[in-house]
Amino acid sequence: MATASLHSLLLKTQTTTNGYFFKNPITPPSQNISFPNKSLSITCATQVQTQSPTTPKSQSQDRIFNFAAGPATLPESVLKKAESELYIWRDSGMSVMEMSHRGKDFVSIIEKAESDLRLLLNISSDYHVLFLQGGATTQFAAIPLNLCKPNDSVDFVVTGSWGDKAFKEATKYCKPNVIWSGKSEKYTKIPSFEALEQDPNAKYLHICGNETIHGVEFKNYPVPLNKDGILIADMSSHFCSKPVDVSKFGLIYAGAQKNVGPSGVTIVIIRKDLVGNAQEITPVMLDYKIHADNKSLYNTPPCYGIYMCGLVFEDLLNQGGLEQMSVEKSVRSLMNVPFTLEKSELEAEFIKEASKEKMVQLKGHRSVGGMRASIYNAMPLAGVEKLVAFMKDFQSRHG
Amino acid sequence: MATASLHSLLLKTQTTTNGYFFKNPITPPSQNISFPNKSLSITCATQVQTQSPTTPKSQSQDRIFNFAAGPATLPESVLKKAESELYIWRDSGMSVMEMSHRGKDFVSIIEKAESDLRLLLNISSDYHVLFLQGGATTQFAAIPLNLCKPNDSVDFVVTGSWGDKAFKEATKYCKPNVIWSGKSEKYTKIPSFEALEQDPNAKYLHICGNETIHGVEFKNYPVPLNKDGILIADMSSHFCSKPVDVSKFGLIYAGAQKNVGPSGVTIVIIRKDLVGNAQEITPVMLDYKIHADNKSLYNTPPCYGIYMCGLVFEDLLNQGGLEQMSVEKSVRSLMNVPFTLEKSELEAEFIKEASKEKMVQLKGHRSVGGMRASIYNAMPLAGVEKLVAFMKDFQSRHG
Repeated sequence: MATASLHSLLLKTQTTTNGYFFKNPITPPSQNISFPNKSLSITCATQVQTQSPTTPKSQSQDRIFNFAAGPATLPESVLKKAESELYIWRDSGMSVMEMSHRGKDFVSIIEKAESDLRLLLNISSDYHVLFLQGGATTQFAAIPLNLCKPNDSVDFVVTGSWGDKAFKEATKYCKPNVIWSGKSEKYTKIPSFEALEQDPNAKYLHICGNETIHGVEFKNYPVPLNKDGILIADMSSHFCSKPVDVSKFGLIYAGAQKNVGPSGVTIVIIRKDLVGNAQEITPVMLDYKIHADNKSLYNTPPCYGIYMCGLVFEDLLNQGGLEQMSVEKSVRSLMNVPFTLEKSELEAEFIKEASKEKMVQLKGHRSVGGMRASIYNAMPLAGVEKLVAFMKDFQSRHG
Repeated sequence: MATASLHSLLLKTQTTTNGYFFKNPITPPSQNISFPNKSLSITCATQVQTQSPTTPKSQSQDRIFNFAAGPATLPESVLKKAESELYIWRDSGMSVMEMSHRGKDFVSIIEKAESDLRLLLNISSDYHVLFLQGGATTQFAAIPLNLCKPNDSVDFVVTGSWGDKAFKEATKYCKPNVIWSGKSEKYTKIPSFEALEQDPNAKYLHICGNETIHGVEFKNYPVPLNKDGILIADMSSHFCSKPVDVSKFGLIYAGAQKNVGPSGVTIVIIRKDLVGNAQEITPVMLDYKIHADNKSLYNTPPCYGIYMCGLVFEDLLNQGGLEQMSVEKSVRSLMNVPFTLEKSELEAEFIKEASKEKMVQLKGHRSVGGMRASIYNAMPLAGVEKLVAFMKDFQSRHG
């Protein structure tokens, strides 16, 4: 069990004579996607020993396993470090929350956060790294405002609710087209890239790399048909969960509150040549050039959140970087694993019992129901093992 | 000394045979402003005993006095409380930074923060209280986008750099007019309200309640000439420093990072009837109706910052509320006290020596130079006393 993850643990027991007890709605994707070649239906054999879930040693007393989709669990070591320097940061005589954002201490914090992130994702000097506010939702407007004129066309591949929201917001500032939508199939699919009918003049092609509500993740990425077009990805919920070839993208954006920090920080990685052409109606705070020219310090940034992101980046580097992280998690197919019970009337009981066992936030998004386990970087293996043991135990009692 | 503050301490020693050593640029304002009836020139007598500044008992070892203009010093008791529950908040089993923003724990935090702020400022149910992101600078765009059509005129009284920035941003979304500017007098004045040439059709009248760079603060407020017009104030840097009659305003906004919390949270108090008429080009994150309808939880808010603001509000209520605060500080004329030395070549030495004595962030804003002491709510009296003693000592050595 020691090196396995939630998915591999579950896939091991895929065949069962009693049919499916736990179900996952994701069906096998088109062939050109590098999803594992197996059905992702989440199942459990019924003939398992009843195993009482216990709190593993690695988890501090009173901490519970938090499967929330975001804000989400943070590494314990990062929280302990933050706790130790909350009142006074190093020899500064004050908390990070009290520092002038233009003082040398905070400047050292934001510069280290940026350079550590550049190391983690191997971001070249052709790109700006910006620490902004307002969540991915603010970027839904900022992107077309910065990259398009009102009559420019852009393409959206919509694989879930977040991509759909990004498309709707773009209608205010350019001419977006949904060239593929998974809505009719309840957002359970990734399209075949060959079949995408891209506009050859589209200014950019937008995807949401991982949809948190439906649990659908791109494993590789389409290429814009327009040779001057750029690929843009909302990576909020799988940012820094694995290496990514930044050079394939014109712009990557991510709310921090899944894998890399608390809510209130949005990271934008943008190719430098794309900055500086914002529409006249662009609010100054949504203009990438303003933030790039001022190294994210045009106005007071969310200092404490940036500091926390910096601690997470440092922690990831200390663990060997994202390749190390992703090797360990090679069989972890998804950041978010929605699942349901064959007997849906048992779902409330499942969530209630799990909560008593210190596993929380397993309820599915209100728009789809069922259950959802979010297993971002900071979720320890012990949490996944405990959930699997609990699922087996629950099945043996109710199956 | 026990009940005095920086200004009263300084005003005591106003007359000096050796002329002014320390200077403050603020001149007496027009008569209808309730500024103290004295010159605010900051001076020190030269015939004072040399007093070695020592760290007062109330200040924990290693903590220094932080006169930054924002982010700024926070109450020690609030930082200690935050430290004690950073790793695990109460019986939640997790940090506030990890909580789902829609879970009952965080909802209880944001609801208590809002109700405590309503108590502090006596905000009626006619107003929404919104916890947003992006700083006051984002509101510079959001306000005209929400309250104006493109051809509506609005009036600005510009008493410093922030009011000027707000005006410039508004030019993108409506027809703003500067009806008074203190620029030619280096932003050292507040105008006579009677002399303001307001547009009778102006949709609103905008002021910046306290200008942090130049240290100019409104002590009472003008009334819009248009009977349907509304008064709008950027109160970022004196928010919750004293009681304010919210009912006189249509909209009050404030970045939290001066008196009430860390950076990354912006508080908007808006009369309910003003919500719901945003221009079509308004980004969804700048639309007050979206945030009002969703109780500031449309997308993931800056949860940890809101939690910190809640701790500060609770602390202010425990101290007896804002009337108690402002009685204690009745002679504290300004949140930000810029001052210069007669011998400007000594200013670098002054800042360096003060820093060695654990008093930091005394350098003036880069746009005006000199020095600046920001004395927000959380600055203890001991810090002010220490600064005064140091100023006297410095003068005796260099005067």
